Amino acid sequence: MSANARIAEVGEAISYEELGLAARNHAFPLEALRYDVTPVGLHYLLTHYDIPALDADRWRLRIEGAVENPLTLTLDELKARPRVSQTVTFECAGNGRARLSPRPISQPWLDGAVGNATWTGTPLAPLLQDAGLRPEAVDVQFTGADHGIERGVEQDYARGLSLAESLRDEVLLAYEINGQPLPPQHGFPVRLVVPGWYGMAQVKWLTSITVLDQPFIGFQNEIAYRYRVTEDGPSEPITRIQPRALMAPPGFPDFMSRSRVVDAGEVRLSGRAWSGWAPISNVEVSVDGGQTWKAAELDPPGERWAWRGWGFQWTAEPGECELAVRATDAAGNIQPVDQPWNRQGMSNNMVQRVPVTVR
Amino acid sequence: MSANARIAEVGEAISYEELGLAARNHAFPLEALRYDVTPVGLHYLLTHYDIPALDADRWRLRIEGAVENPLTLTLDELKARPRVSQTVTFECAGNGRARLSPRPISQPWLDGAVGNATWTGTPLAPLLQDAGLRPEAVDVQFTGADHGIERGVEQDYARGLSLAESLRDEVLLAYEINGQPLPPQHGFPVRLVVPGWYGMAQVKWLTSITVLDQPFIGFQNEIAYRYRVTEDGPSEPITRIQPRALMAPPGFPDFMSRSRVVDAGEVRLSGRAWSGWAPISNVEVSVDGGQTWKAAELDPPGERWAWRGWGFQWTAEPGECELAVRATDAAGNIQPVDQPWNRQGMSNNMVQRVPVTVR
Repeated sequence: MSANARIAEVGEAISYEELGLAARNHAFPLEALRYDVTPVGLHYLLTHYDIPALDADRWRLRIEGAVENPLTLTLDELKARPRVSQTVTFECAGNGRARLSPRPISQPWLDGAVGNATWTGTPLAPLLQDAGLRPEAVDVQFTGADHGIERGVEQDYARGLSLAESLRDEVLLAYEINGQPLPPQHGFPVRLVVPGWYGMAQVKWLTSITVLDQPFIGFQNEIAYRYRVTEDGPSEPITRIQPRALMAPPGFPDFMSRSRVVDAGEVRLSGRAWSGWAPISNVEVSVDGGQTWKAAELDPPGERWAWRGWGFQWTAEPGECELAVRATDAAGNIQPVDQPWNRQGMSNNMVQRVPVTVR
Repeated sequence: MSANARIAEVGEAISYEELGLAARNHAFPLEALRYDVTPVGLHYLLTHYDIPALDADRWRLRIEGAVENPLTLTLDELKARPRVSQTVTFECAGNGRARLSPRPISQPWLDGAVGNATWTGTPLAPLLQDAGLRPEAVDVQFTGADHGIERGVEQDYARGLSLAESLRDEVLLAYEINGQPLPPQHGFPVRLVVPGWYGMAQVKWLTSITVLDQPFIGFQNEIAYRYRVTEDGPSEPITRIQPRALMAPPGFPDFMSRSRVVDAGEVRLSGRAWSGWAPISNVEVSVDGGQTWKAAELDPPGERWAWRGWGFQWTAEPGECELAVRATDAAGNIQPVDQPWNRQGMSNNMVQRVPVTVR
């Protein structure tokens, strides 16, 4: 087992293994930034193994470990509990990986591993309280039904989350997306929703919640989702979403290259911005490839964990140009112009660049 | 403008342009073969340009050209007409392109450009009759709202279909998929459904239907979707779906390679098979890499234009093996073991092969 993804040679093209992942794991097409709530089928998807086949009638959720009263819940019992809906932006921690140079070899995301959906479910904290947390509880392990092998380790997908994060009011056990039962690919029948965190925390196809009296040391926390710059150096866990703004590419595309053509004149640029650390405070647009930046107009703030719309009026003049956009959050985090390279290709929130031909 | 896609050099890896297409254009993950009707979000998607933004209230469908009474219909008017539902297997004509060697450069599909959905709408033929077909009518042009450039040609996506095919009872103008309004990516508000044909005929985001007094000669019929073996040689139009069977890969996968691990013992292999030419008459499975073939059991036939389930009981013995499956239709078409190579990478229905480690 290697702790790290392989790094491609400089100039090494995409492999068939990477292509296979890119085909299975759906990216969000950027024109869908026009929808505040992402329609089912356009939200990004990352499935580590296979989408499992679960039967709602036979499904049970166990809450166990360092609790006084282990619980086993049916789906109906879960649905009978208090019902909450919230709109939350999800992003894969590996978004932008294939734009790193050299490229870590894994799911080769470009920019599109995002989505913003309305999740309905029941808050987790009262369930943990009902189970009776023991004083030694420190971490909570969430295990899904998806089973596979990763870097030699056979596993059910499982993630640990600190008890403090698990007890946040807005952490949900969700059974609906956009007002309909979860489809298989989004975790049917029940998934975890941890607002502000990257997608690896949003465990799908939940089967058990195990309260631990020591920190979780499973593969997905200790090996896979780490920010590590040198091969054997120290690493930090991946947690919340770094700020990012994306632009719906203006004009229309070429089929193969996706390069854009825009008619000269007034063009309304628009898109969305988000951060898991703090609300978005500023979005800036460059129409000269990042040499100069101007403030975009922010839409009125919506729900805290949903992305925020922005717009920018651009007078497009004939010729070639490169558009770019970057977000800053209220904690002072700003998207970098240069790549934040790391060995596993995590949280690359380098600014998006959109080459455009104005005619 | 070139009439052909570029052909990759022997051994040339996947380009970033191909990766960009693979990310946008979602493949069907093969474990979803377990669902007879493909859930929204798992059906394959191929969008030539951008998904357009259409407003149902302002949308109109024009029926014009060689007709006595040109019609303009609102969505409500279309929905007030007779309502029909049918389950139809769609497949992209480029499915399997990235398995050809050398590889034509375009959307790099592996095996997953398929899906089987229930489409609800109104039959097209009575609408054409209401518009009053003139005697000189020979072809019908279906135009969508998606706009872009392809091999130098700026266009709204448009396809021609012969009048005879257009008047088939089962050709629908569909406004629902699986009982819900079409989501944007499947052609909202209305798309064409031509059972038995590859996906290029299933025009999405319909805006006009133009009856022609001579054959349609637009880009998508005359240039893009052609079966052509030599660069300047003759070509044939792509029409109906060649037979194909796919297997849900058994066992569980490795994250990166998607290679499969299966426990020794009795394993039920299963999947689906379809053909646009005739009903499926035979599905065969090989567990020795194609050296020998045995008949699979076919599920009872369902709707004519939907795929047909099959199953095969396999006693898996420890070691490495390669599974394969092939379909034959009642017209005698059978999937080839060798690649049916052509310059644009169309209708590659070479048999699927699934390497498996039995432990």
